[in-house]
Amino acid sequence: MKATAEIQAIPIGAGVSVRREVQRAHELLQQSGLILETHASGTDVEGDLSQILHAVERVHAVLHAEGTVRLLTVVKLETRTDKVPTLAGKRL
Amino acid sequence: MKATAEIQAIPIGAGVSVRREVQRAHELLQQSGLILETHASGTDVEGDLSQILHAVERVHAVLHAEGTVRLLTVVKLETRTDKVPTLAGKRL
Amino acid sequence: MKATAEIQAIPIGAGVSVRREVQRAHELLQQSGLILETHASGTDVEGDLSQILHAVERVHAVLHAEGTVRLLTVVKLETRTDKVPTLAGKRL
Amino acid sequence: MKATAEIQAIPIGAGVSVRREVQRAHELLQQSGLILETHASGTDVEGDLSQILHAVERVHAVLHAEGTVRLLTVVKLETRTDKVPTLAGKRL
Repeated sequence: MKATAEIQAIPIGAGVSVRREVQRAHELLQQSGLILETHASGTDVEGDLSQILHAVERVHAVLHAEGTVRLLTVVKLETRTDKVPTLAGKRL
Repeated sequence: MKATAEIQAIPIGAGVSVRREVQRAHELLQQSGLILETHASGTDVEGDLSQILHAVERVHAVLHAEGTVRLLTVVKLETRTDKVPTLAGKRL
Repeated sequence: MKATAEIQAIPIGAGVSVRREVQRAHELLQQSGLILETHASGTDVEGDLSQILHAVERVHAVLHAEGTVRLLTVVKLETRTDKVPTLAGKRL
Repeated sequence: MKATAEIQAIPIGAGVSVRREVQRAHELLQQSGLILETHASGTDVEGDLSQILHAVERVHAVLHAEGTVRLLTVVKLETRTDKVPTLAGKRL
């Protein structure tokens, strides 16, 4: 099932600046093969729903393995059956 | 990896009242074996991260199979390595 | 205009444990006069939309005044014109 | 107090396609005088916190006045005291 999503990684307790962790999360999403669009409040992605969820899981696993102690991700997932959901189709 | 999460299913285009779809989503989460706490803005869950993500995927799959045309879920996922995350531990 | 909302305060850089700040945010919401229901992922509130937004603004102002350096709040606001929105009406 | 935010308007019950309402919400945000950046999952804004909250309130008021029956907005608000928060500063 194709889906679009927004993924925002929020490291808690990694300091006031979280740029390094957020960049690493973005890098991991880039490695996922999903179509990506980055903006100031997260990364919009397009791809298979299970692939998106797997990418989110990998962000948690890798960031923790690399030292992030606490991680919150806010994910907005969207699927529809009347047409194939795309980021391009959601633009105004 | 253990996680806590909040899952809110938002059917779009199913009418102004979405109680039937939201109840069905909740029912599917109950079948997932995760620890659940329901509130007015979603369902808090506790369990294995991959099990939580699988439950979210199943909500999308089943609701679409049963006629929901467009579905947005807002998911807040939280993991931490300093202690096992639980819903009980997040209560004030 | 009456509204329901979910408010989650997420202090960034205040350490891995953010219980003190989250409790303070909750205390400020309690002082707002809104109807409240707390759960593991935030506080659900019911009241006038402008009163809710004012309460969110006050959480940011007071937490910063008391030393929180960076604060993210995730707010889900809901209004409807077909009936008066209440937390009780949103329960399954 | 300066802030950045992401605002996503989600009309419920307005049909499967909600482009007209989402465009109208965006138009109202443009009239607010805030700095805006639109993406597939919402509009990022930068400005005074109270001005941002007022803009969100106006989106609810105007959309309801123009016929939207039920409206959910997901708002991520961010403030910090160590530097002036900007959308430019949040870009990777």
